[in-house]
Amino acid sequence: MTKLRPALLALALTAAGAAAAADEPKPALTMQDVLDQSTAADWRPLDPDNTLYVELASGRVVIELAPAFAPRHVANIRTLVRAGYFDGLSINRSQDNFVVQWGDANSADPAAVRTLGEADAKLPAEFVRDAEGLDFTRLPDVDGWAPEVGFVQGFPAARDTKANAAWLAHCYGAVGAGRDAAADSSKGNELYVVTGQSPRQLDRNITTVGRVVHGIEHLSVLPRGTGPLGFYEQPGQRTPIKAIRLASGVPAAERTAIEVMRTDTPAFQALVESRRNRRDGWYVQPAGHIDLCNVPLPVRAVTAKK
Amino acid sequence: MTKLRPALLALALTAAGAAAAADEPKPALTMQDVLDQSTAADWRPLDPDNTLYVELASGRVVIELAPAFAPRHVANIRTLVRAGYFDGLSINRSQDNFVVQWGDANSADPAAVRTLGEADAKLPAEFVRDAEGLDFTRLPDVDGWAPEVGFVQGFPAARDTKANAAWLAHCYGAVGAGRDAAADSSKGNELYVVTGQSPRQLDRNITTVGRVVHGIEHLSVLPRGTGPLGFYEQPGQRTPIKAIRLASGVPAAERTAIEVMRTDTPAFQALVESRRNRRDGWYVQPAGHIDLCNVPLPVRAVTAKK
Repeated sequence: MTKLRPALLALALTAAGAAAAADEPKPALTMQDVLDQSTAADWRPLDPDNTLYVELASGRVVIELAPAFAPRHVANIRTLVRAGYFDGLSINRSQDNFVVQWGDANSADPAAVRTLGEADAKLPAEFVRDAEGLDFTRLPDVDGWAPEVGFVQGFPAARDTKANAAWLAHCYGAVGAGRDAAADSSKGNELYVVTGQSPRQLDRNITTVGRVVHGIEHLSVLPRGTGPLGFYEQPGQRTPIKAIRLASGVPAAERTAIEVMRTDTPAFQALVESRRNRRDGWYVQPAGHIDLCNVPLPVRAVTAKK
Repeated sequence: MTKLRPALLALALTAAGAAAAADEPKPALTMQDVLDQSTAADWRPLDPDNTLYVELASGRVVIELAPAFAPRHVANIRTLVRAGYFDGLSINRSQDNFVVQWGDANSADPAAVRTLGEADAKLPAEFVRDAEGLDFTRLPDVDGWAPEVGFVQGFPAARDTKANAAWLAHCYGAVGAGRDAAADSSKGNELYVVTGQSPRQLDRNITTVGRVVHGIEHLSVLPRGTGPLGFYEQPGQRTPIKAIRLASGVPAAERTAIEVMRTDTPAFQALVESRRNRRDGWYVQPAGHIDLCNVPLPVRAVTAKK
C-alpha cells in the first residue's frame, strides 16, 4: 500500500527496553535512533501527585499538571479531584480543530450546580510567571508568537526575558482552565484540552494547567458538538466522566506505567534535530526548522519495575 | 457555564445573508464584523470540476482541488473519480494528530487490487511549481518553514522567490497524494487529509492536491488505528467510502451549496488582522501575530441562488 512514511509512532507509547547503548547522540540520527540509544536517565516518571487520570468508558486520559506555572489552579484541581467533584460530570464540548471541554453542565442552574466544597471559589489569573529561576531549554527555531520558545520540565513553553515572563504554550494536548470574560474567573473546575492546530493566541490569555501525555485519542475522536463553540445541543450527546483521580489516589497496580522523555538532555536535543531535519530516506527536502508545537514529547511504557 | 470565548464559529458554515453594508473594513473589526460587512464580491463559489465529494455514511466531505499546483495529479484524480475508482474503497488509516488516509486496501494483493483503468500509472512529483505568474497574497507574519507564506486562490501556500518556487502548505485539511519512497510514486489513488497540528515538514516532500473546505469532522473523529502509522489492524475497522464524485457529476440540486471567502481582497486582509489581534473583550493580550495555518478560511452556506 502506498504509505506516508513520516512515522510519528513514538508519539504513541514506544516499547520499553531501550537499548543500553550509551553512545553520544550523533547529528544524523533518526528519531528512532535517538529513542533506541536513549538511556534510563533520559526518561522520567510522572509525579503521582501531579498526574490526573480522566476515566472515560473508552479508556483513560493521563494528564500531567504544571504546578510551576499554575500553582493555585493545580492546588484547586487537586482539592476538587480528591473530593470527587468531577465524578459523574461530562464532556460538554468538542469543537473541531480546537478544543474539548468538560465541567458541570448544570453550572447555570443554581438548584442543580455542583458545589466546589473545600476548593477556592476565586483564584488569581495564572497566565504568566517569572522567567527568572526557571530552567528553560530553548528551542533555537524562530517563533512568531513569543520572543523565545522551548521546554520547561517537559512542557512546551515560551519566554520573554525582558518582561521576566514565562508561560505554557497552547500546543496539541495542552490543558487549560476555562474562564468567562473576567481574567480571574477560572476556578479549575472547567477544563479544556487542545485537540486542533495550536491556538497560540490563547497564550497569556488563560491559565494553562498541564498537558495530556497519554490517551488523548479518547478526546480527539469525540463527535463534534453542533451548538455554538462546539457545545453539544442535547444532554445525551455529552460523554460521561466516570471519575477524575490523582494517580497518587490510585493503587500502584492500577496506575498507567509510563515514563516521559526529559527535555533538558542531549538526547532530547538530538531528538529535536532528528525532526528538524528528517534523516529517513523518504524525505527529499529537510525542513531545517521545527515549530515548537511540532516537537514530539515521547512517552514510553514501563513494562517492569526493578 | 464558564466558556472559552475565542469563537471559531465562522470556520463552520456561517449564515448566509451577509449584511449589504459595503463599508471599508476598519482595523479594529472582529472577525464577525468582517464577515457581517462582507459583500458578495468577497466570496466565490467552488468550480464543480475542481470539487470532490467524499460520500461517507456519516455525511459528505467537500474537497477543493488545486490544479494550479498539481495539474497532473488533479487530472488523474478526475479520471479515477469519473470511473468510480474510489467507490466502495475505504479509509484505512487514522493517525492521531496527523492524517487520515484512504485508498485500495488490497493494493498489495495482485489478485485483488483495483485497476487504475484509464488513469496514468505514473505521474511526475508535483511538490513545487513556478512562483512566477502566481497571484500570491502574502501574509507578512514570520514563518519558520518558508521564506514567504500566504494565499493562492484560497489555499494556504508558501513561496521562495529566489528559487522561483511555490507550494501548498500542509495546514489542517490539506489533501495530499500518498507516495512510497520514490518521489514520483504517487498516482492520486491514495489520498490523505491532515487532521492534526500542521505537518509543514511534508511541504515540498509530497504532492498536495487540494484541501477540505467542508465536512472535515467526518474524518477528524474517526477512531484512531492501532497499527503502525495509524493503519487499522482489522478490515472491519475501516470506514467504507460510498463514493467519491466530482460536483460536476452530481445533479445541481444535490450539490453542497457553499461559497468560500476570497483570499485576495481587503475584506480578507481585515479578517486576518481580526485574528492577528483579537478585538473581542475576552482577550487581554493580543498576539500581534498569526501563523499561516491559524488563519481561518471561511465557508458559508448559500441558501438561495438568484
